[in-house]
Amino acid sequence: MHRSFEVTVLGTSSASPTKTRFPSSQLVRLEGDYFLIDCGEGTQHQLVRLGLRMQRIRYILITHLHGDHVYGLPGLISSMALFGRTEKLTIVGPEALKDLLDVIIRTTESRVPFEIEYIKTNPEKSETVLANRKWSLSTVPLKHRIPCTGFILREQGPELRLNAAACEQMGVPVECYESLKWGDDWHREDGTVVSNTLLTLPGNPNRSYAYISDTIYDESIVPHIQGCNLLYHEATFLHNLLERATETHHTTSKQAGQIAAKAGVGKLMIGHFSSRYSQTDELLLEAREQFTDSLLAHEGLTVEV
Amino acid sequence: MHRSFEVTVLGTSSASPTKTRFPSSQLVRLEGDYFLIDCGEGTQHQLVRLGLRMQRIRYILITHLHGDHVYGLPGLISSMALFGRTEKLTIVGPEALKDLLDVIIRTTESRVPFEIEYIKTNPEKSETVLANRKWSLSTVPLKHRIPCTGFILREQGPELRLNAAACEQMGVPVECYESLKWGDDWHREDGTVVSNTLLTLPGNPNRSYAYISDTIYDESIVPHIQGCNLLYHEATFLHNLLERATETHHTTSKQAGQIAAKAGVGKLMIGHFSSRYSQTDELLLEAREQFTDSLLAHEGLTVEV
Repeated sequence: MHRSFEVTVLGTSSASPTKTRFPSSQLVRLEGDYFLIDCGEGTQHQLVRLGLRMQRIRYILITHLHGDHVYGLPGLISSMALFGRTEKLTIVGPEALKDLLDVIIRTTESRVPFEIEYIKTNPEKSETVLANRKWSLSTVPLKHRIPCTGFILREQGPELRLNAAACEQMGVPVECYESLKWGDDWHREDGTVVSNTLLTLPGNPNRSYAYISDTIYDESIVPHIQGCNLLYHEATFLHNLLERATETHHTTSKQAGQIAAKAGVGKLMIGHFSSRYSQTDELLLEAREQFTDSLLAHEGLTVEV
Repeated sequence: MHRSFEVTVLGTSSASPTKTRFPSSQLVRLEGDYFLIDCGEGTQHQLVRLGLRMQRIRYILITHLHGDHVYGLPGLISSMALFGRTEKLTIVGPEALKDLLDVIIRTTESRVPFEIEYIKTNPEKSETVLANRKWSLSTVPLKHRIPCTGFILREQGPELRLNAAACEQMGVPVECYESLKWGDDWHREDGTVVSNTLLTLPGNPNRSYAYISDTIYDESIVPHIQGCNLLYHEATFLHNLLERATETHHTTSKQAGQIAAKAGVGKLMIGHFSSRYSQTDELLLEAREQFTDSLLAHEGLTVEV
């Protein structure tokens, strides 16, 4: 059975919304766990509009504290409370986020009848911030105008399936099955060894999703995102505005394609488009010149990792 | 010439947005001055979507600090800054709003290159907070779970037009024209008096708009809003949820109609609908049973005061 791992785009605008674009936010569903990455203004509205259940969100990952990535958070938390949430919510983000939300919740006299756990990100180095038997979440330091990290979600777990017929025929004891799925050979009591390849079949390789926004063009992230199945990379400007991109610590679409090519990812999805672009086709063309398997993020799009 | 005085509804939902409804916000245009009343999450998006120019907004009036009335403010201010605003913005609202916005602006490292003037409202008594030769703005204390005021915008100025032919024929000096428009009689130098009614014509009576949200049913507001041309009154619930309305300090649609009838207003517009109502027709029917000239607020509606 193929495990579910998909990304739904809620917002693709940088800075300010346009008639059709919302600020940054994505919902990631990974084997039943819901992650929200960034939460620009209007995120709760997008969840409602797309029929996605906000109460299922267990983790909220915030890259940095610019308003277009966080201004939807107080409203989302208020609505979760209003609709009777009692389950814990874990927010992963910059250190100052906790105090900011505390002040907002207190000043607006909001009632939040569920626990919020904060896990602070370190903008200086990559860290694994959460991990369990199903997945791990790690950070990537990014270079933006304020402290900022990207995120990588990786499936965890055995990548091999048992070859049940072979195991039975050769008399492998049940207690050895788990280690076979992790790639171990079978060591018989008589000291002989049966190669793993005779006892297993290729299973589902662990997939990974990297979310890189906001950042200036920065090749130092490449080792972190090497080989990811899906890379989301910001592409705020066309390359003819390279100077503006550099000055504001953003990336051009061409540069996003270059990063994808260097990192040898499976697919590249670009987003975080400046409101100056009413059409985004040209941004896609520019990325594709560097990296063929590029696609445009748009509101409501769901991509399988 | 009829002066312009119109209200455009940006949001009609209470608490949480629905697929089609946004939280509270309205844009009032009065003789070239733009007022935003309340600023729930998504307000800047509604302005963009409806083609209304956010930079024209000179005054923002905030009734109270519940999130569905203020969570759009940081994003709106950020966008005003991003698009190069330099003109002063005046925010009228509860005292704690200034500190809240200061913390948000500081923590998100937003650059706000224009002056924000704060005028604090007093939730205990009605006050005129702004006035000039064109209009006046006053507050109405409301009874909600937290400090809250409604607002009344009134046109100011002479309500009479000169009867130019009569003035000329009777030899009224030009310097007396202004006082005639305000209703004074003409006092000749010889001590005789010419009645104002002989020298003027009916002009444009000063109109007024009252915005009443959020509040429990409260007849003590009636003297303040008596005779307003247009009354916006919250109507969160149908009357069969009176208990819930009372408990949460909100009003039912029937009660909103009763207030409109008691205050003898010109028209009643109801809004701030609970997300439980996907259809709002019944809310309107209930208000109309109490007050015939009732209408439903909906996103994008513009009403002439």
